[in-house]
Amino acid sequence: MKRMRIVDCLKSDIPIDDCIVAGWVRTKRESKENIFIEINDGSCLSNLQVVVGVGDSSFDIAQRLHTGASVYIQGSLVPSPAVGQTWELKPNIITVFGDADPESYPLQKKRHSFEFLREIAHLRPRTNTMGAIMRIRNQVSYAIHTFFQQKGFLYVHTPIITTSDCEGAGEMFQVTTLDLHNLPMVNGAIDYTKDFFGAKAALTVSGQLEGELLAMALGDIYTFGPTFRAENSNTTRHLSEFWMVEPEMAFATLEDDCSLAEEFLRFIFKWVLEKCQEDMQFFNERIKPGIIQNLELIVNSSFEIVTYTEAIEKLLQSKESFEFPVHWGMDLQTEHERWLTEKYFKKPIIVIHYPKTIKAFYMKLNDDNNTVRAMDVLVPGVGEIIGGSEREDRYDVLITRMKEMGLAPDDYWWYMDIRKFGSAPHAGFGLGFERAIQFITGMQNIRDVIPFPRTPGNARF
Amino acid sequence: MKRMRIVDCLKSDIPIDDCIVAGWVRTKRESKENIFIEINDGSCLSNLQVVVGVGDSSFDIAQRLHTGASVYIQGSLVPSPAVGQTWELKPNIITVFGDADPESYPLQKKRHSFEFLREIAHLRPRTNTMGAIMRIRNQVSYAIHTFFQQKGFLYVHTPIITTSDCEGAGEMFQVTTLDLHNLPMVNGAIDYTKDFFGAKAALTVSGQLEGELLAMALGDIYTFGPTFRAENSNTTRHLSEFWMVEPEMAFATLEDDCSLAEEFLRFIFKWVLEKCQEDMQFFNERIKPGIIQNLELIVNSSFEIVTYTEAIEKLLQSKESFEFPVHWGMDLQTEHERWLTEKYFKKPIIVIHYPKTIKAFYMKLNDDNNTVRAMDVLVPGVGEIIGGSEREDRYDVLITRMKEMGLAPDDYWWYMDIRKFGSAPHAGFGLGFERAIQFITGMQNIRDVIPFPRTPGNARF
Repeated sequence: MKRMRIVDCLKSDIPIDDCIVAGWVRTKRESKENIFIEINDGSCLSNLQVVVGVGDSSFDIAQRLHTGASVYIQGSLVPSPAVGQTWELKPNIITVFGDADPESYPLQKKRHSFEFLREIAHLRPRTNTMGAIMRIRNQVSYAIHTFFQQKGFLYVHTPIITTSDCEGAGEMFQVTTLDLHNLPMVNGAIDYTKDFFGAKAALTVSGQLEGELLAMALGDIYTFGPTFRAENSNTTRHLSEFWMVEPEMAFATLEDDCSLAEEFLRFIFKWVLEKCQEDMQFFNERIKPGIIQNLELIVNSSFEIVTYTEAIEKLLQSKESFEFPVHWGMDLQTEHERWLTEKYFKKPIIVIHYPKTIKAFYMKLNDDNNTVRAMDVLVPGVGEIIGGSEREDRYDVLITRMKEMGLAPDDYWWYMDIRKFGSAPHAGFGLGFERAIQFITGMQNIRDVIPFPRTPGNARF
Repeated sequence: MKRMRIVDCLKSDIPIDDCIVAGWVRTKRESKENIFIEINDGSCLSNLQVVVGVGDSSFDIAQRLHTGASVYIQGSLVPSPAVGQTWELKPNIITVFGDADPESYPLQKKRHSFEFLREIAHLRPRTNTMGAIMRIRNQVSYAIHTFFQQKGFLYVHTPIITTSDCEGAGEMFQVTTLDLHNLPMVNGAIDYTKDFFGAKAALTVSGQLEGELLAMALGDIYTFGPTFRAENSNTTRHLSEFWMVEPEMAFATLEDDCSLAEEFLRFIFKWVLEKCQEDMQFFNERIKPGIIQNLELIVNSSFEIVTYTEAIEKLLQSKESFEFPVHWGMDLQTEHERWLTEKYFKKPIIVIHYPKTIKAFYMKLNDDNNTVRAMDVLVPGVGEIIGGSEREDRYDVLITRMKEMGLAPDDYWWYMDIRKFGSAPHAGFGLGFERAIQFITGMQNIRDVIPFPRTPGNARF
């Protein structure tokens, strides 16, 4: 079945006599002399128009086709007289693999709401928007790998199931093979030594801690895998299951971390602007005007680095009335982040040196004993897109910090060992993949940038 | 901290006056005039030798260094008089970030058993073997992406948490946020409508079914993500959590599937032979002599396609005494697979058209109503490395097959919909990533080819 992809047909330099195309019927319309069928095979946003004349041998079969049918067409790729398309297909033989009953096929030729499409997530990859999302996810994924490979980072696979709890968060999914109707008990508590892993297990919220172990042996590494949050958040920015990219560099400081994040974002945005022009145009026209310009701005800007303290000063000096009042020690809210990057600096900024009280235990303490070597990258349009830090590499300081935060260093003995044996400065960050796709495409709801979203109440398909 | 990676130092064309290197001390030895320190930074198998003379300013600090210490060295890369290495480092300044107490650091200069190293999985990436494994995993991963990207396949992320059960297997991990000490009950059963996803949820055993949904919209796709089996298998070939690669092609048949699998394996093996020469040499010398030759054989062979029925005939005609007696209808055991590929055909083979009774419900039934359009790729050294099939795309036939196998088609309504609306021939296969790495490196135990293995009783780190 040597078929040609529609994306290749449409950019052909020459007519092709013997062309085989397969795909799904998007629309069909009839004029007096012709039937016009638009075929899409997922390889690009555009359809290929198939034109069947009244006397053609495939006229009867074409007449009986419906939206959603899958077809296999042998024919000739010829110049199209229609405006806006260079080529069209003149079929010799149309084979119908499977028709789609117009009474029951949900994806008829009309605009469907994103809410409705989420209910038929198994079919929505056949829509323009989800097709474009999937092609952009693909290119951004490969850009991520290519960026790190070019820089000599090793792709590592950190574990998904874990018996440790990264940030002391209670928002983890439990993983078990125990019979819940017949739980093994010991002294009134569940006996987890009887569970599959011999201990209470959960889905990871981050690969960072294990990533650190690997960086502290291999130099520069990155993860790109699924992570999980059992938060009951029904917002347009939260998923229970999402993919995360987490690079980690040995022998690196906060400054190296900022440079890497800037270079990384520029690289992937430039890549997607180059490789996904048609799809990006679609999002720019139909979803969020200005997003291409916004990405171009980031690609062409140098990022401004400001301390948290400076950022708070700018916010206090502003005349804006924020919903959340500004004071030193607070966590920046999206409204503050967006004001800083959109209104004040008018470009991407990296905020560094946050108060230790609002950041995780593993971030390196500054000499002021008050701030940590954290960094958040804020971009126009959404605010925070990357969060990272230099890691606390001093054994004693880390112990103190953990105790301050109510964590038991013994539970992290393996993490502590890295500080005991051959410790060194190291740094890394995390990028939520779906949030990045949301930012790139301008899609309003994060459930519409992943093929099968997992959210409270929904893990179907 | 602009350091140079050791891999780049060692292949330098010229001496470098101002060279900065960072890494971990692997060994130290002293002669009358010099201290020789071997440094490794994970960028390659080889160490860089640092030579400190008696009168040098960094002599004192060098003398106090131990195996495992992390150092940052400024110096000159100069030609080495020693045999087997082109360059060595003459240090000006040695900075010690973190020493490693020789009394307690577990990785001293001696050979450690793989069993022992599994107990310190947080430190074993600092060993030669695990370092080489990690570099090979990285290159194979990127080869996989590059292969599919070059062929126009889209990388898709199928869900990890699912409320459906792919192959009707009971060997799944349950995912829950219910309080197990206080389970919500209804009519004597657990009320899963109260669980996070509103239904009983589990970790996926395969992304295939969702992959099919996406292929039947986008054309050609592939997954590369973690999958899970709750089997209580303590073997050298089983992990509870492993990574899987699953391509799926719309408008493709069993024959297309076989071609793709052959081209795919050749591509990744060729890639790893080219990009990981030093590490492959290590495995060839230390772990399993002959593995390079075996990979070269596969890269240079055309694969032989044989039917299951032919394979059974060859086995019956052989004079071998197999542990499992051979008869038509049996599942091939590793001993049979290896005899076929190693002894009889002496090259990789693809066995097709297996009895329907031993294969999954989704494989396309042949006209004989007895065999299915399945395919297994068998390679010398291990036997099966890839399993795939053309999928049953006929709605009615699929319904019948599912009922035969005791499955309820209604549970798979979304999978059935793809056969109802615009169905078409499609095919795909699965490659277990860790088994592939095991095959490539010759490592005996699969727990030693993944950084943090999950097996019955173990999900530490």
